[in-house]
Amino acid sequence: MLRTCAKRLRTLGSPLGQPGAQRRSFSSEKFIHKDYALPNPSWSKDLRLLFDQFMKKCEDGSWKRLPSYRQNFPEKIQEFQTLYLDSSLAKGEQHAQQFPRSLDVGLGFEYVMFCNDVERKVLCFLQVGPHLQGTPGFVHGGAIATMIDSTTGMCAFRAGGIVMTANLNINFRSPIPLCSVVVVDSQLDKVEGRKVFVSCNVRSVDKKTLHSEATGLFIKLDPDKSLKK
Amino acid sequence: MLRTCAKRLRTLGSPLGQPGAQRRSFSSEKFIHKDYALPNPSWSKDLRLLFDQFMKKCEDGSWKRLPSYRQNFPEKIQEFQTLYLDSSLAKGEQHAQQFPRSLDVGLGFEYVMFCNDVERKVLCFLQVGPHLQGTPGFVHGGAIATMIDSTTGMCAFRAGGIVMTANLNINFRSPIPLCSVVVVDSQLDKVEGRKVFVSCNVRSVDKKTLHSEATGLFIKLDPDKSLKK
Repeated sequence: MLRTCAKRLRTLGSPLGQPGAQRRSFSSEKFIHKDYALPNPSWSKDLRLLFDQFMKKCEDGSWKRLPSYRQNFPEKIQEFQTLYLDSSLAKGEQHAQQFPRSLDVGLGFEYVMFCNDVERKVLCFLQVGPHLQGTPGFVHGGAIATMIDSTTGMCAFRAGGIVMTANLNINFRSPIPLCSVVVVDSQLDKVEGRKVFVSCNVRSVDKKTLHSEATGLFIKLDPDKSLKK
Repeated sequence: MLRTCAKRLRTLGSPLGQPGAQRRSFSSEKFIHKDYALPNPSWSKDLRLLFDQFMKKCEDGSWKRLPSYRQNFPEKIQEFQTLYLDSSLAKGEQHAQQFPRSLDVGLGFEYVMFCNDVERKVLCFLQVGPHLQGTPGFVHGGAIATMIDSTTGMCAFRAGGIVMTANLNINFRSPIPLCSVVVVDSQLDKVEGRKVFVSCNVRSVDKKTLHSEATGLFIKLDPDKSLKK
């Protein structure tokens, strides 16, 4: 929940502040942010093929690859809290990491997202590592929910700006084998006032297996109403 | 999904095999299973107090603490797959770890579950570490979903035996600050044939804040119907 805000802070220019200040944080030795949404040696052939295929689709500008970091940019955290939060509510950020990036490379979530703002879609190509196990040999339902929440949340953000998750409703149709690659395919359905509705499915790479279906309801944050005491 | 099966294999006697064989796996140098549902130095005062309080409730046998491991017992994995799965579906188990136990001590999920089979309840006392972040300073919705799935799944298992998650429907009411302690409180609602219905809420320790509400639908596995090809 709320993690799409963090993504905006990480992935966009500088919607809430000065672009120059953000660029300086990239070059600071103190805050080096590695983009994890790029191939590494743990990526399987399937994941690499999907990545290459969509990088080609990015060439005409219709699709865009979304970078992904472990930590938030400190300046953006400060701006976010000033606008949206009572800072006494949040704590523990000095050692914080984004949950989907918190496991070591190859052991947890290996993924890259691509968005198409005209089609109002966000796709996530996901390789599920061996530390995501639920039942022997298969992925934990919470790990699937994590990437559904992340992908639908990003889809809602692209349409509605900074949002928080209000509801996730997930039907688990078929278990996902550990170490396989799946496609999380999210689509914006509608926007009604501050409500943003997104639907989603999780399929095997060959599209023959429907692993999960889900809907997400997100609420646009409002600096005057949302999370201040 | 399906992770309650793994828990049964880890937490119960030896429902599918020979008790003697399982006890031998405990004493093997090759497979040492540490129980993580016990206090460690990362536990806050709040979590420790809840643990002590419920350990006292265990003394008359009404409540029971549930142990928790990172890996499955190899013999039980084999038995599980023989009974319920086409083994060609599962892979990657040699390095597998249970997802809720896959982060280092203190950084991810620190939790202990207690069950009361007469009241048909499972409680999970959960401390959310700094690597579970979604938006700055708060827990990712997928991390909350993970512990809701784990707790409701355990509640369904206590009533229905080996189950898999069919649906999770989660309403996120209030964000959870990183490094806080919350109580995941699950209750069996009803059993209809192979369907097991569980409801759940996530509250702050002082019970004043309702963070999330959820329902879970679980399906009892059937060796003749469930997951064989």
